[in-house]
Amino acid sequence: MTNNAMASLFEQLRAIVGAEHVRTDLGALEVYSRDATPLFQHPPSAVCFPSGTTEVQSIVNLAGETGTPVVVRGAGTNLSAATVPQLGGIVLAMSRMNRLLEIDTANLVAVAQPGLPTAELADAVAANGLLYPPDPGSRTTSTIGGNVGTCAGGLRGLKYGVTRDYLLGCEAVLGTGEVIRCGGKVVKDVAGFDLLRLVCGSEGTLAIITELTLRLVPAPAAYAVGLAYFESLAEAGASVSHVLADGILPATLEFLDSTCVRTVEGYAGAGLRTDAGALLIFGQDGDVRTVQIDLERMARICRSDGAIEVRLAACDLDTHNILEARRAVLPSLARLAPLTILEDATVPRSRIAEMVDRITEIAERHQLVIGTFGHAGDGNLHPTCVVDPQQPGALEEVDHAFEEIFAAALALGGTVTGEHGVGLAKQKFLAKQLGEPQMALLRRIKAAFDPGAILNPGKLGS
Amino acid sequence: MTNNAMASLFEQLRAIVGAEHVRTDLGALEVYSRDATPLFQHPPSAVCFPSGTTEVQSIVNLAGETGTPVVVRGAGTNLSAATVPQLGGIVLAMSRMNRLLEIDTANLVAVAQPGLPTAELADAVAANGLLYPPDPGSRTTSTIGGNVGTCAGGLRGLKYGVTRDYLLGCEAVLGTGEVIRCGGKVVKDVAGFDLLRLVCGSEGTLAIITELTLRLVPAPAAYAVGLAYFESLAEAGASVSHVLADGILPATLEFLDSTCVRTVEGYAGAGLRTDAGALLIFGQDGDVRTVQIDLERMARICRSDGAIEVRLAACDLDTHNILEARRAVLPSLARLAPLTILEDATVPRSRIAEMVDRITEIAERHQLVIGTFGHAGDGNLHPTCVVDPQQPGALEEVDHAFEEIFAAALALGGTVTGEHGVGLAKQKFLAKQLGEPQMALLRRIKAAFDPGAILNPGKLGS
Repeated sequence: MTNNAMASLFEQLRAIVGAEHVRTDLGALEVYSRDATPLFQHPPSAVCFPSGTTEVQSIVNLAGETGTPVVVRGAGTNLSAATVPQLGGIVLAMSRMNRLLEIDTANLVAVAQPGLPTAELADAVAANGLLYPPDPGSRTTSTIGGNVGTCAGGLRGLKYGVTRDYLLGCEAVLGTGEVIRCGGKVVKDVAGFDLLRLVCGSEGTLAIITELTLRLVPAPAAYAVGLAYFESLAEAGASVSHVLADGILPATLEFLDSTCVRTVEGYAGAGLRTDAGALLIFGQDGDVRTVQIDLERMARICRSDGAIEVRLAACDLDTHNILEARRAVLPSLARLAPLTILEDATVPRSRIAEMVDRITEIAERHQLVIGTFGHAGDGNLHPTCVVDPQQPGALEEVDHAFEEIFAAALALGGTVTGEHGVGLAKQKFLAKQLGEPQMALLRRIKAAFDPGAILNPGKLGS
Repeated sequence: MTNNAMASLFEQLRAIVGAEHVRTDLGALEVYSRDATPLFQHPPSAVCFPSGTTEVQSIVNLAGETGTPVVVRGAGTNLSAATVPQLGGIVLAMSRMNRLLEIDTANLVAVAQPGLPTAELADAVAANGLLYPPDPGSRTTSTIGGNVGTCAGGLRGLKYGVTRDYLLGCEAVLGTGEVIRCGGKVVKDVAGFDLLRLVCGSEGTLAIITELTLRLVPAPAAYAVGLAYFESLAEAGASVSHVLADGILPATLEFLDSTCVRTVEGYAGAGLRTDAGALLIFGQDGDVRTVQIDLERMARICRSDGAIEVRLAACDLDTHNILEARRAVLPSLARLAPLTILEDATVPRSRIAEMVDRITEIAERHQLVIGTFGHAGDGNLHPTCVVDPQQPGALEEVDHAFEEIFAAALALGGTVTGEHGVGLAKQKFLAKQLGEPQMALLRRIKAAFDPGAILNPGKLGS
C-alpha cells in the first residue's frame, strides 16, 4: 500500500469510529503486534476500536474495498497466535463493545457484546444464582468474544462441555460486510445449517461476531475437591477410567505430572508432597450431599487403585487452595526459564498415561524440561516446555520435540489442539491431522463467508 | 435422462453394490417416494443399499459424473420431507450399514454406522451402564445417522441437549466423492472449522455420513416423574420458570394443553383429569435421593403457583405410565381425523404460554382442531393439527394457520423448526427467519461441500 493510500485508509477509519478510536502510533502497533503466544509477532497498520455493529460493518466494507486484512481481537490471551496480524492491516480491538446487555433468568441466557471480559460475565450471572460453565485459564482477562472465536475450553469440559455448548445465538458481520443473525434465546433450533458452531472456533476468519447469546445453567449449591497421589501417571489414568466407569461425572478431574508438582510446590508452597509420580485433583459440584458422596466414592476408587495418599479438602478454603495450586502450575513453570511454551495436544482419555510417557521420552531425548498437566477427564494435556531461547539451538530442539509430540497425539487418535486453536502456531500440523481434501474444504468454506479473503487472512482456511 | 442413460446408470449401480442391492421396481420406488411427512411425495429412479464407505463413495462419484441427485435416508421417520427425493435420482438407503462398531467404556463413546437404529444403540449402551441421551419421539425406528442428519432432539433437551451435543466424530463422503474424517474419541478438539456440527442437521445436503463417534454419559441410577394440573398454560409456564429459577435442571419438563389431555385420556384412559387447562409433567434423574428431593421441590413450586392438583409417581410403573400417556398424545390426536400435521415451532421458554394462546386463537379463527404439547423446558412446541383433507378448502386453511403460527413464533424470538428440520416442508418459512444474506451464505456453503449440487438437491442450501 502506498503512503497516500495508507493515509486515505486512516482518514476513512477515523471517519467511521472517530479519530480518538484509531491508533497508528508505534506504541499501539507494537502492543497489538502480538498476543499471548511467544515467538510470533507482526505489527498491524492501524488499530480500531469500534463501538457497535454498524461501525464494524463499515470497517469491513472499507477493508473489502481496499483489500486490507482485518484481524479481530478480544484480550489477546490466545495461545496460538490467532490474533497476530501476520499480514498487517487493521486490528479490530473489541474493548469498547464490552457491555453485558441482558441476563434473562427466565430463559437462562445472557446477551453480551464480544468485548465483555469472561470473568465479568461469570460474576454477573453468579450474582443471579446462575453459572456460565466455560472457564478457560485466562478467564480473568479473556473476553467472551475471544472465547467464542477460539471455542475456549477450561477445567469443566468433562462435565459441562466447552464454549460451543453454551452459544445459542449471535450477530456477526461476514467478510462481504453483510450482517447475519443466527439462533437466539432458544435451546433447540435447526433452521438452516449450524452457522453458530461453525463461527465458534473459527478464529475470526469467517465473520466478526458483534453480539452473543449464551446459555446459562443453575449454579450448583456446593463444590469441593480432593487430591490423590500416585506412583505413576499410568495409575492415575486407571483411576480416571474407574471413576467414570463407576458412573461419576466429576466437575473437576485434573492431573499434574511429577515435574509440575515439584515445580509448583517450590513456587507456591501449597503443601503438596513432591515424592509422587503424579497428582490427580478430583472435584464435584451439586447439592452438598451429592458432592460429599461423590468425593468419597472417588477417594475410595483412588485408594483401591493403589494411590499413595488420598485427601479430601477439609473446607472451602482448602478447596480454593488446591485449585490455586493447580492454577499456579503455569506461572511456576514459567519461572524456570525465560521462555514458556504451553501446548495442548489432546488424546482419548484412556491414552493419557501413554501420551505422557511419550512426552517424557521425547523431552529426555531432546534434553528439554517439559512438564505436563491438564484436564484428565478430557484427555486434554498441556505439555509445557521451559527453555532459554538464547541458548544456541534450543528453539530448534523445542520445534523438533513438539513436532514429535503432535505426531504422537495423532497416532493415539488425538488432535493437535484441544482448546487453544490453530492460529499461526499449529498451522503446519493441521494438514497432517485433517488431510488435503478437508484442508481444501476449509478453504472453500472460508471463501463462502469471506470471498475477498480479508478476515484474518493467512490463518484457518487460507 | 434418456431411457438408455437410465439403464446404464442402473447397470453401474448394480456393479457397485451388487444387483440384489439395487431396487428399481415400482413397489420400492413407491415406498421410498415419501417419509413420515404427510402431503409430500416423489419417487426416486432407483434405491441403493450400500454396504460400506467405498460403495457410498463410488455411488457419489457416479452421481457426480451423471448429474444424478443422491438422497440419503435412514428410517424415513423425519417430519419435514427432508428425505423425499423431490428431483428423483438415487435414494441411498443406509439399512445395511447398521453395525454398532464399538462401545468404548473407558472413553465413554460409541462408534456406529449410520443405519444403526437409535433404540439399538440406546439399549446396547444401557447394558454397559451408560446413557445416550438424545431420544427423539421416533427413536424405536429412527436411525442414528438420520438423527445426526436432522440434529434430532427429544424429551431430554433441557438437561442433556440434543444430537449435536453428542457427536464427537464422523467419517463422511463429500459431494466431490472425497472422504473426510472429523473429530474422534476426544471431548475437546478445535483443529479446523467445526465441520462436525455443520454436517449435523444438514439433512444430507452437504455430505453422506458413513461412520459416527458418539459421546455417552454414565446412566443415572434413578428416574421418576410427577404431574401438575393447572387452570391455564400461563400458570404452568410460570411454574416452569420458577422451577428453573429455583436452581433445578429437570430431566423432563413436558406440557399438554387441554385439547391434548382430553384426547389422550379418551384414547389411552391413563387416569388423567380432563377438567384442567394444562398438564405439566416434570421429572428428574440422578441418584435416588436427588430425584426424590427435586421432585418434591418441583411439586412444592407447582402447588404454590396455584396448581389444581399435583401428584408424584408412586413407583417406576407409575412413572412409565405417565410417560406413556405423554407419548400417546400424537397417536391419540391422529385418531381424530384422517390427516395429522405435527409441527415444531419453538420459542424462548418464557414465551410458551403466549405462543399457545396465539395458536389457540389461530386455530379458532380458522376453525381447526390444533392440540399443542411439547417440551416446556426447551420452549419446543408441537402444535398438531388434525383435519380431513377431503373437506373442501381444509388444507388451505391448515396452510394459512401454520403460516400464522410460524410468523408468531418468529415474532416471539423463536424458530420455525426446533428439532424436525427444514426439508421441503419448512422451505418457504426459512428465508423469513434467516434473511436473504444468510440464505445466500447457505448456498455458498452448500457449494463448498457439494459443487455439483447432487446431494439432496432442492433442499437446504439450494
